[in-house]
Amino acid sequence: MGTSFSLPPDEYTRRQDAVRAELARRGLDGLVVFAVQRVFYLSGFTHVPTERPVAFVLPVDGEPGMLVPELEAEHAAARVPGLRRLVAYPEYPGLKHPMAFLGDLLRELGLAQRPLGADNDGYGDHMGYRGPTLSEIAGSPVKIVRELVDDLRLVKSPAELELLRSAGRWSVRTHHLLQEEMAVGRAETAISRQAEWRASDELAESLSAQGHLGGAATVHASFRSGPRTAMPHAFMGNRPIEPGDNLVSYCLASVGGYHTELERTMFVGPPSERQREYFEVVLEARQLALESLRPGVPCADVETRVRGFLVARGYESAIRHHTGHGLGLEFHEPPFFDLGDQTILQPGMVFSVEPGLYVPGLGGFRHSDTVALGENGIEILTEYPHTLDDLVIEI
Amino acid sequence: MGTSFSLPPDEYTRRQDAVRAELARRGLDGLVVFAVQRVFYLSGFTHVPTERPVAFVLPVDGEPGMLVPELEAEHAAARVPGLRRLVAYPEYPGLKHPMAFLGDLLRELGLAQRPLGADNDGYGDHMGYRGPTLSEIAGSPVKIVRELVDDLRLVKSPAELELLRSAGRWSVRTHHLLQEEMAVGRAETAISRQAEWRASDELAESLSAQGHLGGAATVHASFRSGPRTAMPHAFMGNRPIEPGDNLVSYCLASVGGYHTELERTMFVGPPSERQREYFEVVLEARQLALESLRPGVPCADVETRVRGFLVARGYESAIRHHTGHGLGLEFHEPPFFDLGDQTILQPGMVFSVEPGLYVPGLGGFRHSDTVALGENGIEILTEYPHTLDDLVIEI
Repeated sequence: MGTSFSLPPDEYTRRQDAVRAELARRGLDGLVVFAVQRVFYLSGFTHVPTERPVAFVLPVDGEPGMLVPELEAEHAAARVPGLRRLVAYPEYPGLKHPMAFLGDLLRELGLAQRPLGADNDGYGDHMGYRGPTLSEIAGSPVKIVRELVDDLRLVKSPAELELLRSAGRWSVRTHHLLQEEMAVGRAETAISRQAEWRASDELAESLSAQGHLGGAATVHASFRSGPRTAMPHAFMGNRPIEPGDNLVSYCLASVGGYHTELERTMFVGPPSERQREYFEVVLEARQLALESLRPGVPCADVETRVRGFLVARGYESAIRHHTGHGLGLEFHEPPFFDLGDQTILQPGMVFSVEPGLYVPGLGGFRHSDTVALGENGIEILTEYPHTLDDLVIEI
Repeated sequence: MGTSFSLPPDEYTRRQDAVRAELARRGLDGLVVFAVQRVFYLSGFTHVPTERPVAFVLPVDGEPGMLVPELEAEHAAARVPGLRRLVAYPEYPGLKHPMAFLGDLLRELGLAQRPLGADNDGYGDHMGYRGPTLSEIAGSPVKIVRELVDDLRLVKSPAELELLRSAGRWSVRTHHLLQEEMAVGRAETAISRQAEWRASDELAESLSAQGHLGGAATVHASFRSGPRTAMPHAFMGNRPIEPGDNLVSYCLASVGGYHTELERTMFVGPPSERQREYFEVVLEARQLALESLRPGVPCADVETRVRGFLVARGYESAIRHHTGHGLGLEFHEPPFFDLGDQTILQPGMVFSVEPGLYVPGLGGFRHSDTVALGENGIEILTEYPHTLDDLVIEI
């Protein structure tokens, strides 16, 4: 399962230029982002957020600057070409606070005491970090403009869609392995680990074959079984699966930082009448949701239709969440198929479609697919059997 | 490897009372926390932060309230006894914003337009969440007082130390398995996954034997090999290990939400003269750090001593980070063994001790142990061989 594991470099300059145009329109001289996914979106630099601040600074004219701790300096220099200035501070908290180094960087870029936008007024609340606000450091009030980056992220480029397609295929492969490993008497954890291990092994081979060191892609497999599936976000446990169980699976795959999810409701042996009833109504809701996805439709309309269907059929009390959410650099991101989200659907948007029903004592019922919207219809990135016959574990 | 996987319930009431006393002292009528680790610390409720806000509200007098999305309501009700009020909102963004439900909760608890403290002025920047500030919702300015919770977390109680000891033993067990799996020609990922799988399996059995459903404890194994170890936080890859490599391992174990880490520098076959030189000097630095840990000593003094030793021996250019950090509910947390951290060491504090040296082209050299400070000395929670003879993989 080949294809690319990262974006072409011009993707980042294109994004930076789009942000610059919006900065100019708003009369802002520069943008500072602290949150990991926005730093990654604008620079390609990925990291695990800790107490050590990282910031990416984009002037409205001129090349960007970046603040990293010394232990990330080599990594940042290698990953982010075209920086005007990379400032590496020794440590957090340090004798001189990292935010004071950010002040130096702003001065060097001509951005001190200038009108600035930012995603947050300072570094986030990570691992006990404490420090001054960006406004204090910059010497001028900062405008919070998360949407400058986040709105760009709503519509995926052709290169982003390629990574998402590749991730979708790995979600599917992982789910096939998960289903293969399922057997009566085996525990949730043992089944899931074995499937994830096999999928990870195949992924590592595929990455090696293309000269990658790893880290460019990941897979995850898990599921919950029995009555606990009635909790939509329950953690996996070590319960052995039993005849009569329903299962709700959860396979994720990420390629180049882009995430997909694939979930299925399954049964151990033939389902009861009641299990079958809920399974079929959720399948109808899924079909209705998929048919509702067209450019120009507000997200809220999708939710109104799907929810209306479930309520009309008498299942209102079993609804626990909306129909789906955006996917991309985060496992959940805007837009949301929610009564309160009036975002208009556009080609290039990617989301989960996952209407579900949850019945205490009986269990949970939910398929989730990752779907891209095109000009002329949808593309399911996680094509996997979804009807009952294919989702029963033999006993 | 038995012992407990969770805290006794009175631990939470004790913590809440400590916060109440501090609220009273500061003239605040209540505290609102949004960050996952503070909600967990005060309530025992654990979750993965998403776009759906969660908040825990503690009045200075009276029982607490909590805000959760509908899909977490059952879980919160089961996990958090003694709530005066649990408000479950339908969805984010919803027709009525979750923060408006928080406003209702504050009114019901008599906290609207009252002097409040909070860890953040609103819910965090997670997964595209947008919403009003807490100040806007409460109708009064909010004081940011993260330290009300975070300072309590600095010193671990006897029950917390028991969980950390248990986690330390699982870190050790995981590292033994990692070392067992290491063999020339096998890839980093394959070795690590197999070790993690075996450790997870043993952990699941141990949890089952005590009637746990799982999720109460986790283990992680990984390592990096060869010249890439020179990057202190490099991701694991799929590089096969080779004679002459140095390896830097990373084993984590968490029990009941409390984290420990254990890391070792290892060699594939006999190390070169230069590798041995760096290994031995780092071992001396580690010993010096361990001997410096005594109640009453400022954290900065430990760093001054360890750093001073490395600089005096001529290794300043190979230093990339400070000597260690606190451990508990987060993988890094205050205090830090850092020149800029004047926190005074107290019995009950738990931290990593991990001076390291990093040489481009040669590799990284770092052991890390999780250490608890007692009245009369230290307790290494991750006892594992640390001298050269025990850390060479046979070729």
